[in-house]
Amino acid sequence: MVIEDELKEAAVFERRKPDVFGDAHPKALLRKVVENGDYLKPLSNQHILSTDQFDKNTLRQLFRLAAKFESNPERFSTPLQGKILISAFYEPSTRTRLSFESAWHRLGGDIMSITDRSTTGIAKGESLYDVGEMFNNYGDCVVLRDRSDQSLYEMVKSLRIPIINAGNGVDEHPTQAMADLYTILKWRPDLSSSKVDDKLKIRVGVIGVPNQMRTVRSLLKIFAKVPHMFSEVIVMHDGSTDPVFDKGQLEHLRNAGLNVNETTKVKKLVPELDVIYINSIAWIGDTYTSFQEKIRLTGKSKLKDSAIILHPLARGDELSTELDETPHNWYFSQARGAVFVRMALLTCLVQRTERVIDVI
Amino acid sequence: MVIEDELKEAAVFERRKPDVFGDAHPKALLRKVVENGDYLKPLSNQHILSTDQFDKNTLRQLFRLAAKFESNPERFSTPLQGKILISAFYEPSTRTRLSFESAWHRLGGDIMSITDRSTTGIAKGESLYDVGEMFNNYGDCVVLRDRSDQSLYEMVKSLRIPIINAGNGVDEHPTQAMADLYTILKWRPDLSSSKVDDKLKIRVGVIGVPNQMRTVRSLLKIFAKVPHMFSEVIVMHDGSTDPVFDKGQLEHLRNAGLNVNETTKVKKLVPELDVIYINSIAWIGDTYTSFQEKIRLTGKSKLKDSAIILHPLARGDELSTELDETPHNWYFSQARGAVFVRMALLTCLVQRTERVIDVI
Amino acid sequence: MVIEDELKEAAVFERRKPDVFGDAHPKALLRKVVENGDYLKPLSNQHILSTDQFDKNTLRQLFRLAAKFESNPERFSTPLQGKILISAFYEPSTRTRLSFESAWHRLGGDIMSITDRSTTGIAKGESLYDVGEMFNNYGDCVVLRDRSDQSLYEMVKSLRIPIINAGNGVDEHPTQAMADLYTILKWRPDLSSSKVDDKLKIRVGVIGVPNQMRTVRSLLKIFAKVPHMFSEVIVMHDGSTDPVFDKGQLEHLRNAGLNVNETTKVKKLVPELDVIYINSIAWIGDTYTSFQEKIRLTGKSKLKDSAIILHPLARGDELSTELDETPHNWYFSQARGAVFVRMALLTCLVQRTERVIDVI
Repeated sequence: MVIEDELKEAAVFERRKPDVFGDAHPKALLRKVVENGDYLKPLSNQHILSTDQFDKNTLRQLFRLAAKFESNPERFSTPLQGKILISAFYEPSTRTRLSFESAWHRLGGDIMSITDRSTTGIAKGESLYDVGEMFNNYGDCVVLRDRSDQSLYEMVKSLRIPIINAGNGVDEHPTQAMADLYTILKWRPDLSSSKVDDKLKIRVGVIGVPNQMRTVRSLLKIFAKVPHMFSEVIVMHDGSTDPVFDKGQLEHLRNAGLNVNETTKVKKLVPELDVIYINSIAWIGDTYTSFQEKIRLTGKSKLKDSAIILHPLARGDELSTELDETPHNWYFSQARGAVFVRMALLTCLVQRTERVIDVI
Repeated sequence: MVIEDELKEAAVFERRKPDVFGDAHPKALLRKVVENGDYLKPLSNQHILSTDQFDKNTLRQLFRLAAKFESNPERFSTPLQGKILISAFYEPSTRTRLSFESAWHRLGGDIMSITDRSTTGIAKGESLYDVGEMFNNYGDCVVLRDRSDQSLYEMVKSLRIPIINAGNGVDEHPTQAMADLYTILKWRPDLSSSKVDDKLKIRVGVIGVPNQMRTVRSLLKIFAKVPHMFSEVIVMHDGSTDPVFDKGQLEHLRNAGLNVNETTKVKKLVPELDVIYINSIAWIGDTYTSFQEKIRLTGKSKLKDSAIILHPLARGDELSTELDETPHNWYFSQARGAVFVRMALLTCLVQRTERVIDVI
Repeated sequence: MVIEDELKEAAVFERRKPDVFGDAHPKALLRKVVENGDYLKPLSNQHILSTDQFDKNTLRQLFRLAAKFESNPERFSTPLQGKILISAFYEPSTRTRLSFESAWHRLGGDIMSITDRSTTGIAKGESLYDVGEMFNNYGDCVVLRDRSDQSLYEMVKSLRIPIINAGNGVDEHPTQAMADLYTILKWRPDLSSSKVDDKLKIRVGVIGVPNQMRTVRSLLKIFAKVPHMFSEVIVMHDGSTDPVFDKGQLEHLRNAGLNVNETTKVKKLVPELDVIYINSIAWIGDTYTSFQEKIRLTGKSKLKDSAIILHPLARGDELSTELDETPHNWYFSQARGAVFVRMALLTCLVQRTERVIDVI
């Protein structure tokens, strides 16, 4: 099957990787932001349903805490001792589920997983209200992903423990957006200041369809919390979906102060961008749909030397592996950072902030 | 999607709930029963297959231990350290599985879950005897739920670690019955005495079908262990199933000293009862069947002021949410208490009793 | 359902079993082999893909470490604290999965399970390379079983954490072969020496089909690492599969110094063997196939008094339960030992060897 030299080569591996993937950067962000636990206190009795809930000061402190975890991954192994997470993925997922479960394990907590909706009481006709009341008795925190937009809002009516929305239908995916913004700040910690000089603002392209993709919907909302970071945010698409925004979605973002536009002239614009966010897959019901299959980033794409690429993953052909070993690749750092962002958020939600924050 | 004020309201929650749900009551039971670990010793080399195995003294001590856990939920986090539970739910369940897994986690143990019968060796034709021998090597305790009545009895032939029956076909569900009785004793700790004055005995109605529902079968059996608590136990049904008892089932209960009767005059009787136990769903094979869809408890039902309602959950229309905020609602306390009852039982089965009992 | 005396009998169990199953023997192996941690160092940056990777000195030390764990099962409960295992069983399994998960739990680590390939990004078209990069961020070690031979080799291209092959298609199952050889050495610790007197070498029969069964393929390879143990290894089959070896497979084994032959004269040969290894089930794709249904070992089979039987389990009719209570039964010891062999290997792979080895 596998001849001997090939086997020897396959069987040995290196643990370290070159820092082309931006692994040194959490420390830079850690130094830039002054710790202030006051802004984390409101999280102790909140559910995380929508990106709309956050304010920039809380986000800044969550990112600092995430950077603290990412800079010292071995140090914080006990903050969630004795706490139980109910990991409820009624809509299938491996990546997001493992990201949350890894975060919870790293902090010393215990986990119960539900990965098959058909085994639940819901299949017996049980109301989500009753499911929430059940969860109150069994765990300390819930992470929920479901095909339906509304399940989450039904469940919170009875929940007395915090729940994080890990993706509700086409609506939102708040922690993914947090991970995306965290990555940008790891790359450019100076953007975490309250004021950013015009010359230093970044121009960001988002290749995606805001009214079809919860990742993009949440991303634009989180950008609207920190509009001073951006000279412009441009939604880029191929014109095959029309319209790309929900009614009122674009106005809402602009009213928050975000300079957001849309275009189909993707090829022309990409070389001018500082950050290119690309995503092509959206889950609709039981299946996934690929949008905009004609837009692809490859080794041949013209990019600014300093430009970075973000992708929530899983990826298909729209983001070529030719870019993996280039300095543009910040999507792996994005996936890595997502665990630490979730560690920060989960710690605050279950009231263990005082175990990890010095100034509180 | 969700407008901003609605979001603010949905996103904030309270951790405490008013004690209309009977949460203060474990302490009353704890004071009433004197601790005596001798009665727990027989559990150290027993499987929990049927409610028939228990005697009232062991039950009383298990309930006292459960009440100790429920009164001090944070105190006992290490008794099961180093112990592994094999959580085998060959018949789907979320509620019972999470209840057991939460109990085991709360006590510091580790868990391996099997939630899909088709991934097991049984699908390869492996005997349950061999599955039991396998479990001996991998864990310290098994919890099993299966569609077949007999799987459990096949498996115990080779098991050298304890197993708990979490529901075997239509036969039994012993720990659910324990949770039900525990709830009654939390509500009325005086009933835990060996003698109960006639004027204080309770009149209990069980809305269900004993020969179709393992929850009801086990419940009546556990009542028959403590017949002195009851002035009468009445099985109430709508007459659509006939007969409602298996051959010999009723005689067996009466021989144990339980004053048990049946009736179809449900509406007339309900206002006279101290405890109303209601259940309508039974799992038969791969699907569930609803029994007695005409019998419903709602906000309009005439109940004694002091009457309490029990339901093993999940519920459908037979128990209206209108009752949730009334003092009759002891079904949420019942679900909550089930975790602590299981904690008590599991601790004793894996020989860790000495870590939680003072007098042993 | 179950009458009372039968219940009493079913409900009580013994924890100990008579040592007909070879449980005392780890200590003999422990005494025989001198500890030398140097031979375990190469494991700290290796994937375990194929049995071909091992050399006899590393195997000897792994078996000594396994024997140390098996002799003192309660002692080593913390070596893997803080380490996360990704248990990825894309091809269904309960036995092997629980064996690995039990091993990891026993050493104090945490686990995330993937038991349904359809929930993974692979179902979205994600490459195995990207899955590997994802695993780098979420865990410290991967165990993978998949229907395809090649998935493993695709995944290692990006992995920077160790992976163990728990069965790849028809190709290999290295840790099963390790468990099999470990069992032989527990039975005959003298065979662990570098030299074995001709009179003491063992004659081993392998009832199985090497080119269809990954367990047999890996077993023959591991025998070829220690050819000095065997006077002869005979592959025994019923002639219904032809050929039974892949092209070059037999030559490769013989070139390594293993005296290996094949025969269909099974009945004649069995009474002359010291070790009989039997397996009849092979998983091909989504279903299993039984090979050689005419070859069976039963209580009537003529065996040398001192002969031992091995079987990777799950078993069907080919190995009768009549043999379970005889001294020939080493297949239960084999299953038990597999957990400790995996504990030894996992500890070394995640660089925690210094926590369990004295001489390193």
